[in-house]
Amino acid sequence: MFSFRLLLAKTTPLSPIRSVHTYLCIRELIKCKQGDSVTIKGWVNNIRKMKKTSFVDIIDGSCATPLQIVVGKNLNDSGLLNFGSSIEASGTIGQTPKGQLELRAEEYKVIGDCPIEEGFPFAARHTYPPDYIRDHLHLRSRITSFASMLRVRDAAQRAFVDFLTLKGFLQINTPILTASDCEGAGEVFRVRPDNDELLRSMKREDVPHEEGFFDRKAYLTVSGQLHLEAMAHGIGSCYTFGPTFRAENNRSPIHLSEFYMLEVEQAFTSCLGDTVNLISEMIISVTRKLLDSCADDITLYHGDFAGNLFDWLPDIKDFPILTFREAVEILQKHQDRLKVPIIPTDGLQKNHELFLTDYCQSPVFIVDWPITLKPFYMRPNGSNPDLVDALDFLVPRIGELIGGSVRETDYQRLKEKLPPGSEWYLNLRRFGGIPTAGFGMGFERYLQFLLNVHNIRDVIPFPRWPHSCHL
Amino acid sequence: MFSFRLLLAKTTPLSPIRSVHTYLCIRELIKCKQGDSVTIKGWVNNIRKMKKTSFVDIIDGSCATPLQIVVGKNLNDSGLLNFGSSIEASGTIGQTPKGQLELRAEEYKVIGDCPIEEGFPFAARHTYPPDYIRDHLHLRSRITSFASMLRVRDAAQRAFVDFLTLKGFLQINTPILTASDCEGAGEVFRVRPDNDELLRSMKREDVPHEEGFFDRKAYLTVSGQLHLEAMAHGIGSCYTFGPTFRAENNRSPIHLSEFYMLEVEQAFTSCLGDTVNLISEMIISVTRKLLDSCADDITLYHGDFAGNLFDWLPDIKDFPILTFREAVEILQKHQDRLKVPIIPTDGLQKNHELFLTDYCQSPVFIVDWPITLKPFYMRPNGSNPDLVDALDFLVPRIGELIGGSVRETDYQRLKEKLPPGSEWYLNLRRFGGIPTAGFGMGFERYLQFLLNVHNIRDVIPFPRWPHSCHL
Repeated sequence: MFSFRLLLAKTTPLSPIRSVHTYLCIRELIKCKQGDSVTIKGWVNNIRKMKKTSFVDIIDGSCATPLQIVVGKNLNDSGLLNFGSSIEASGTIGQTPKGQLELRAEEYKVIGDCPIEEGFPFAARHTYPPDYIRDHLHLRSRITSFASMLRVRDAAQRAFVDFLTLKGFLQINTPILTASDCEGAGEVFRVRPDNDELLRSMKREDVPHEEGFFDRKAYLTVSGQLHLEAMAHGIGSCYTFGPTFRAENNRSPIHLSEFYMLEVEQAFTSCLGDTVNLISEMIISVTRKLLDSCADDITLYHGDFAGNLFDWLPDIKDFPILTFREAVEILQKHQDRLKVPIIPTDGLQKNHELFLTDYCQSPVFIVDWPITLKPFYMRPNGSNPDLVDALDFLVPRIGELIGGSVRETDYQRLKEKLPPGSEWYLNLRRFGGIPTAGFGMGFERYLQFLLNVHNIRDVIPFPRWPHSCHL
Repeated sequence: MFSFRLLLAKTTPLSPIRSVHTYLCIRELIKCKQGDSVTIKGWVNNIRKMKKTSFVDIIDGSCATPLQIVVGKNLNDSGLLNFGSSIEASGTIGQTPKGQLELRAEEYKVIGDCPIEEGFPFAARHTYPPDYIRDHLHLRSRITSFASMLRVRDAAQRAFVDFLTLKGFLQINTPILTASDCEGAGEVFRVRPDNDELLRSMKREDVPHEEGFFDRKAYLTVSGQLHLEAMAHGIGSCYTFGPTFRAENNRSPIHLSEFYMLEVEQAFTSCLGDTVNLISEMIISVTRKLLDSCADDITLYHGDFAGNLFDWLPDIKDFPILTFREAVEILQKHQDRLKVPIIPTDGLQKNHELFLTDYCQSPVFIVDWPITLKPFYMRPNGSNPDLVDALDFLVPRIGELIGGSVRETDYQRLKEKLPPGSEWYLNLRRFGGIPTAGFGMGFERYLQFLLNVHNIRDVIPFPRWPHSCHL
């Protein structure tokens, strides 16, 4: 048998299989100096035609600032340099009177024209309302503010992973298809193969036709928490980051049918304070990192607010903590300023959450919740069994960002409350059980909070909500 | 309005909301020195009882090596130190005669007992076949080799992200729920709310009952590629990593109903060589990094093979490349050694793929595929329109790991081949179109390749396959 090196020598060289990236992205170009020869590729974002030259702004998705290209009249006679076209341009780096780098084009080439008259939905120097931009999902990445969001989203995702990795948490991919409904709320999507013939061919005795693929009903996950707990009972502290689903007819600006959740489980933890500390450190450290590393992109969103929104961040070490009872007392004291009256047995409405963050002028933890308002897997408080060791973390402009709790470890109590079909969950407590605590954070809500974006549909690349699943 | 600092001062301090992690995980403990006082928490993995002392091996999910705890007879009289129990132990660090660190317990506490007689499926010093372990999904993380896989999976995921981030690629979360079926293969899962009442309440005129939630059929994604291309047309080079679904009745050891795919799209790329180069560099760099950073966990899987499986890796810069025609010629020359005869119009079967990687003694690229064997979005070869600029990347023991291509950019040709409902995809070429190329890699297959695991169900925490969707 030949070694592959012999084989390599034998095979004839292929038609141009080697190529070299000879162009720079704009983010890299900023490191160049005057006089350097460079090539860039991107899209025309603006054109200002003067007598002798044209100034063309180019974007390429790599950073918030467009690059200005100076195109002399001698070059600019093909008439093809339209807004939205993709182009390649080569030349030398120069400096504008204001001290910014620009590219003085020696040649350029249109890669793909953009015939606006054939229905391109955007035009130069226009700003569009979010609803209009969202009608053109496949072209949204051409909008500079949306591209900024995509960069921040990528950076935020990595920042949370980096933080948790440093803390010793392991990422677990919990399943999307599940046999159980964690919260028991019934607001789940059901899944079956599209192909009826396949279902018929797979059908086993006593299994309904629709359930023939898995021999049971299968749902889209509403939370990876229970699965995460199973892994934490052997691997220790862990987390999952991924898509989560709700079949709710809720079209509010903080709800989606498909959204991303960061769920974290702390092993060997029986104290809610550990969870409060972890969340505080994570939110402060990730937010500080992003305000620094994505400053240009975030400023583009905050506009004039830039200095104000995160005033509290530089000095903060801890967030304020209120018990549910204290929160209710504050709300009752200010009934006259609430749009919706506070009814303690119904919990907090969004309106109440926002009042509390306004009142505190900062994110705030609400702890020690009535047991009746929270799901079965939360541990009753040691000194008051009418309460559970649970927390909500509320942030300005959004309301609830995070929900968490210490998990019920008592085998008997859990057995009584357990939804049917979850015996495996009970067995985690039976064989070498450990105390754990954890929380879930809506990732898109964090991005709304960070970027001050009103509608959650504008912080996810392809939003899905009731009556809307485009592309 | 109060500032939150005033508020903090006002609220009474909460019941023990502060706690300090006073224990170490085993991975951290290795950095300690003899005589240090420490506490650890974990599960009993083995017990050897001697006259005066017991030697107890503890695992906690943080690394491949258990920690030995020495428990004097005076401590070990409660009889509760069973295999599988969770315990907390404190003492001082000592050294075994072989030079390894051990913990000389001064006290210990059982956190959760493990009554094996009540049905705990594992026992000390036993190895179990993978099928048996897989029957106990919720307790699998207690198996040391499975815990090693989870750590490697976490590290691999981050290594791919780090590599692509350094190369300037942006992570995009492409949607799980889609309105389109990318490959047109029809092997998709369909999604609807579980709640019929909800569907009725949402139903609009002319919309079938089952489609009432989104006003259309919705499927689970089979690939994020088309959505990724849309983003690449504004944001530049990007990738997606996430769950992907196939409603196929395929129970082979390299197929799952739910699996993870890394899909990468290179912007401004019209040469297959760029994709070959990116894949080569990625596989070599990520694999080297993992063989180094996860050495203990990977060795646990490779056993005696450790030195052999990646013999080719230290020196390699490029993988061998064969055209589809050359591959067929090699296979035809060795007909007698193939289990399945080669029929070129049917493409390569797994058996053929494995013969080729054996033959090359390394992973190998197969390029220049017949157009009839590949999907609509691949670009015909410039010099031979019967071929497309596509690649398969085959690896030893698995077969196809990666498939990729240069994308069709010609508006007219694409229009003729396009599946219905994908006009938006066509419009990417119409308005400032750019050449792109990309590939998709099955993440679990990469882990099988790296760890030499036969069944794909053993490299994902919660596997789903035909007739099986547990927990």
